[in-house]
Formats: sequence, structure tokens, C-alpha cells
Amino acid sequence: MKIALDAMGSDTRPVPDVDGAVQAAREFGITVILVGDQDKIKTELAKYDTRGLDLPIVHAAGEIAMTEHVDAVKAKKDASMNVAVRMVKQKEADAIVTMGNSGAAMAAALFGLGRIRGIERPALGSAYPTAKGRCFLLDIGVNTEVKPEYLYQFAIMGAAYAQRVMGLASPRVALLSVGEEEGKGPLIVREAYALLKQNRQINFVGNVEGKDVPRGEADVVVSDGYAGNIVIKLSEGLAETLVGFIKAEIKKRPVAIAGAALAKPAFDALKTKLDYAEFGGGILLGVDGVTIIGHGRSNAKAIKNAIRVGKQAVEGNMLDAIRKGL
Amino acid sequence: MKIALDAMGSDTRPVPDVDGAVQAAREFGITVILVGDQDKIKTELAKYDTRGLDLPIVHAAGEIAMTEHVDAVKAKKDASMNVAVRMVKQKEADAIVTMGNSGAAMAAALFGLGRIRGIERPALGSAYPTAKGRCFLLDIGVNTEVKPEYLYQFAIMGAAYAQRVMGLASPRVALLSVGEEEGKGPLIVREAYALLKQNRQINFVGNVEGKDVPRGEADVVVSDGYAGNIVIKLSEGLAETLVGFIKAEIKKRPVAIAGAALAKPAFDALKTKLDYAEFGGGILLGVDGVTIIGHGRSNAKAIKNAIRVGKQAVEGNMLDAIRKGL
Repeated sequence: MKIALDAMGSDTRPVPDVDGAVQAAREFGITVILVGDQDKIKTELAKYDTRGLDLPIVHAAGEIAMTEHVDAVKAKKDASMNVAVRMVKQKEADAIVTMGNSGAAMAAALFGLGRIRGIERPALGSAYPTAKGRCFLLDIGVNTEVKPEYLYQFAIMGAAYAQRVMGLASPRVALLSVGEEEGKGPLIVREAYALLKQNRQINFVGNVEGKDVPRGEADVVVSDGYAGNIVIKLSEGLAETLVGFIKAEIKKRPVAIAGAALAKPAFDALKTKLDYAEFGGGILLGVDGVTIIGHGRSNAKAIKNAIRVGKQAVEGNMLDAIRKGL
Repeated sequence: MKIALDAMGSDTRPVPDVDGAVQAAREFGITVILVGDQDKIKTELAKYDTRGLDLPIVHAAGEIAMTEHVDAVKAKKDASMNVAVRMVKQKEADAIVTMGNSGAAMAAALFGLGRIRGIERPALGSAYPTAKGRCFLLDIGVNTEVKPEYLYQFAIMGAAYAQRVMGLASPRVALLSVGEEEGKGPLIVREAYALLKQNRQINFVGNVEGKDVPRGEADVVVSDGYAGNIVIKLSEGLAETLVGFIKAEIKKRPVAIAGAALAKPAFDALKTKLDYAEFGGGILLGVDGVTIIGHGRSNAKAIKNAIRVGKQAVEGNMLDAIRKGL
């Protein structure tokens, strides 16, 4: 198993990238190929005890800034994410993992790997913490406009992910809508419902509403990238706002301060539950190669977990499951 | 000031409806006309000391069940919500307030009052608690499909509400999208952006993302009814899930249980902040009459507050503000 890591990906590249790679190589016993500026990577790698670990470096002279336009992907052939993608294309690596510019990373993967035959639009998916564990949400921002067929394909790809990466035998797949009944929601959602109802391979459970997502009423929640992006970002903002509100209220009350100190482990557990670093990166589904795209602000743990997701997708033959599902 | 209350609205009609009406009449010194089954209302009203309060009863023989199709609005001319709407149409009341079947209530108001000239689609709006107080969100579920012009009109109506009901001199109006920049989001949102940018009367602050809504980065957040419905319901489910998670974690730890007891006032403050009953009902904007539509599960306090919102909209001449904004 070889994962090509774009070591020039994160905001503080290559510091957490190399750290995460070292952790992943040690913990998972896999090869993590560090793609990027070899001098910077070597300097960083020297800080760790890497005996017995397989961490080859592949030099890439260029890199793409977070602020750069996606056009940079075509202009900079030697950018680290392009080089990493090419390694997957040429079977020198099994998956690419990057914390770089998301738009550029998606373009690099799409241009470099192409789409899986039958897939009209790739979608970005992400794990989402729920009351019952986690669900998988897609699309979270690539396709702000969709057709019913796209949603149908997102559902197939999401089911493949849930089976092969999350390890669920029969994941409950749902469409995000404004009501549970079949006739609810925008025309596109209603038409996607009709398509999914006819698919006997997928455990399609119908529509879920916004409240059902955090409650964990589905394992795979399918929507356009506009709604999915709002779900992800609203959840982030709301969790932060609620915890901030409770803390502010506690500070107003001396007795509550003492109480909060005692209750702290419970809040810490919540923090862990919601911690982005725990569930790694987003995954670009529909391109012909396993492609993990995480936040630029990822720490080493998040990068290690993003590599873990890539490894699981390869081991679970997720791409085959998508092909079979179509 | 006369508010026509559909006394046969809530799930446990007319119990909380009459209770809320009595509270509103006392607290606000206004006339609340109780529309519905006169025997049931009289029986309920007899439980209160209503001396000095103006609570006339207007009999309506029919009522529309929560499960009934909107067609019932046309079939049941004598349904309490239809009678209440007619009172507003005939200037016998200044506003209608109902906790009944939302779809039916919207249809009743639309058929009975008509649209404000220039408004293509009415929208349902709701207050939303934020870190900075409250914002106003619309549409939250009527129009799952929109055109840029609808969003533009929603913005004008939302601004009128924020000015005349929330009392904000220059409310910050924003479009909900996937990024703050002008070019972000679905085509419809981008076109609405272009329209709003040209409006000099509205304090249009551009796009907000999902995370900005609970943070209170805008006073009026405009979206289609699909996204707005997801925001409202996701927030409800997520707040419940997060608080449930914290409580479960606390129960696992004896020390934390003691802490939680001390921290309880802080949690109670959060509960109050998020309590639907505190901010009353939704408001249907764009029909030619003030129309408040609350949850069927509203308690007396929620109904009293829904009446308060109706009163404020009348006092603030909200309909005029909408007409002037167009």
C-alpha cells in the first residue's frame, strides 16, 4: 500500500504534513510517499525517528498557493499535487492525499485521473458526527447545481464509501429534503427519489430532514453541493456558537464556574466528538483514483486520519464498488 | 388593535390558544378575537379571570386538521382559519394568528388576502437565535424552487420585517451561499446578488455562509425554501443532539454530575435562548395582511409571543414598508 501525500498541502506546509505522514507510516505500516520540495521535506523529516518506516521522497519543484486560481493546476505541471496525482495515474501510488487548495486539488484529480466511466460529476463527501456515530454527507460544495441523475450517482458513490470505508453492510442512504414524504422538496430531489426507489442494490430509506442528519437517521445523506455546504458550515458555526454561549453563561455565575470545572471532561468528550482532526479529510468521489482532500488548517492528526481514510478506501476496493453500483 | 386568533389552531386546541390569547390581551392591552367553536372557547375562557380584557368570540363551525390536504381550505369556507382571514380582509381585524396546519394556513391567507402588488411569491420567515441576538431567516419552506427575482423580493420583505418588527434601523441583509465572494453559489443566488447590489435602499452585505448564520453576521438571511428549511431543522436537531451528548457524557462521570448541577443555570439560559416559545411564530410575508403562522405544538407562551409579533407588524406598518421597498 502506497499513499502519495502532497507534502506541500497544509497552511503550514510541510510541517504537519510530514508529521502526519510519519504517524501514519508507523501506525498503519504503510508506505507514505512525500511529494514536494525535497530539501524542505528532508529538513522536516530529520526531526523524527523514522527507522523502519517507509517514507520515500519524490521531488516536486512547484506548489499551488491556497489563494491561487484553479488555472494554476494546468500552468504548474510540476506542482506537488499534480505530481502526486500522476503517481496514482501511473500506478506508482494507490491513493493521493492533500490538504492543499481544494478547488485546485479537485481540478488536479479530475484532469489527471479522469472520471469513473458513467459518473457525470464527481462529488466531495465528508464524514459528519451524529448522535449514533457518523454519517457520510455528499456533495458538500463542488456541485452547487445538480440534475436528478447526479444525485442518483452521488447516492451510489456514497453507499460504496459507507460499505467499503465505514464498513457498513447495508448503509441507509437518504436524500436531504424538507419533509420525509416522497413528494416533498424541489423537483430535482423528487426526481432523484423516483430514480433511487427503483434501485434494488441500494438501501434507500427515502428523504431525511435537516434535524435527522445530526440525529443519525441515515448513514449516507445526499444533496446538492449548495445544501451540503450549508449543512457542514452551519453545523460548525452552530456547535461553536452553542458551546461559546454555555461558556459565557457559566462565567456569569461563580457557582457555575465551579460546576463547569467538574463537568469539563464531558465538554472535552464533545470537543473530541466534533474534532475535525478525528475524522480526517473530505473525499472526492467519482474520479478514477482514491483522492482525499483535507482542510488547509489540518494538524498532523487530521493528516494521519486522512491517510487512514485513503488506505481504507484502497483496501476496501471502493472504486470497484462504485463501478459495480452504476 | 385587534388580532384575529384562530383558536382552533394548536395540536391541543383550543387550550393553549385561549390561554395565550388571555395572556396577550392582558399583557399588551389589545383585543384578541377568538375565532372557532364558541362552546369550546367559552368553556376554556371560563377558567380565566378575564375582567377588563377584550376577548370577543367569533364562531366558526369548521376546523382544518393538521393532517388535512390544503384543498380543505377551499372546501371548508367556515373553517376557523378561513373565518379569521376574512375578518382581516374585511378590516374587522388587523392581523391573523394561527398555530394550525401550516400549508392550509398559507393557502387560506393567500386565497383570502391576495398578494401585495409586485410580490411574485410569498415567503415564510422566522426569527433565529444567534450569538449576537436574533436574525430573521426567509424563506423557510414555502418555495423550494425560486427565481432570482423571488430572492430579491424576499430580501426586501425581510428588510421590512427587520426594520418594523425587530426595530433595526439598517438591518444587514445577506444571501445564504457557499462562500462570501460575489461569484460563489448557484446561478440563481449569483443573479440575485447582482439584483440586490443595485438596490440602494437595502443594506445588502453580500453572501454569508452557513457558519455565519448562528454567529449573527447578518440580520436578514435570504435563501430558497429548501436551504432555509434545512437551516431551521438542522439547527433544531443539532442543538438537541449536542445538549443530549453533553448530558450523556456528564452522566457517565459522578464528579461531572455534581458539576452539571452547579452549571445548570447556564444550561437553562441556553434552553431559554433556543426556546421556540420565546420568539413566537413564523410570519408569512408577501400576502396583503399580517399573517402569523406558528407551530402546532406551540404552548401558551409561544402563542402569546406570536400575537406580539402580529401586533408589532401592525404597529410598525410592515406592509407599507414592503410596498415602499418594491
